Amino acid sequence: MNSDPGFYSIIDYTVDGPETQKELVEAFAEIQERWVRFYPGYRSARFHVSTDGTRVYNIVHWASEADYRRFVETSDTEGRMAAIQEALAGISGDAEPRMNGAPTYRVVREVGPGPRSSGDT
Amino acid sequence: MNSDPGFYSIIDYTVDGPETQKELVEAFAEIQERWVRFYPGYRSARFHVSTDGTRVYNIVHWASEADYRRFVETSDTEGRMAAIQEALAGISGDAEPRMNGAPTYRVVREVGPGPRSSGDT
Repeated sequence: MNSDPGFYSIIDYTVDGPETQKELVEAFAEIQERWVRFYPGYRSARFHVSTDGTRVYNIVHWASEADYRRFVETSDTEGRMAAIQEALAGISGDAEPRMNGAPTYRVVREVGPGPRSSGDT
Repeated sequence: MNSDPGFYSIIDYTVDGPETQKELVEAFAEIQERWVRFYPGYRSARFHVSTDGTRVYNIVHWASEADYRRFVETSDTEGRMAAIQEALAGISGDAEPRMNGAPTYRVVREVGPGPRSSGDT
């Protein structure tokens, strides 16, 4: 990829059904609005729910890794974590995190539409 | 969200380090080029690697669910699955799928940049 695609944080939960998907998205959207979206370099949080009702991804896009690091260093991490715990406690269904390690990502490659490649190349 | 954000397939692997991340991205990028990117409605496959070296997400974007369903119905699923197995077998490190259920997703909400919300709203 030629252009800088930014930096991502991917929050990944397994849930027990469509109602919990809805509750989790509502809760995490509010977390973004109260704790994250006003920091420099924040681009978006996009909530992906699986069609089978079992999973929720929140993909948070930052303009750059530096912006994300500045957010981590300058924001109220303790307050945000407490708000996340409170939000999770308020959900009626089961929601289990599936993250392991640091949930931060770089996009290293993109394959756009194009002709079928032969197996020889 | 007002506009149709499309339809996504999210392929999620845990791996044993940065070298395996690289190999997996190469292998799956070739799968896209040989088996997927020429179907109508295909928008992109974006490969996200975690900064800690433990995880790879391939997020495949389709213009609509109908386009994705048409791809599933009209494509050579058997050939594609065999190619994926072959690609995984050719990787020197460990790569374990983390998908459960159907790996298809809708984006149901997006939170853009904005002022901090108060807790009262």
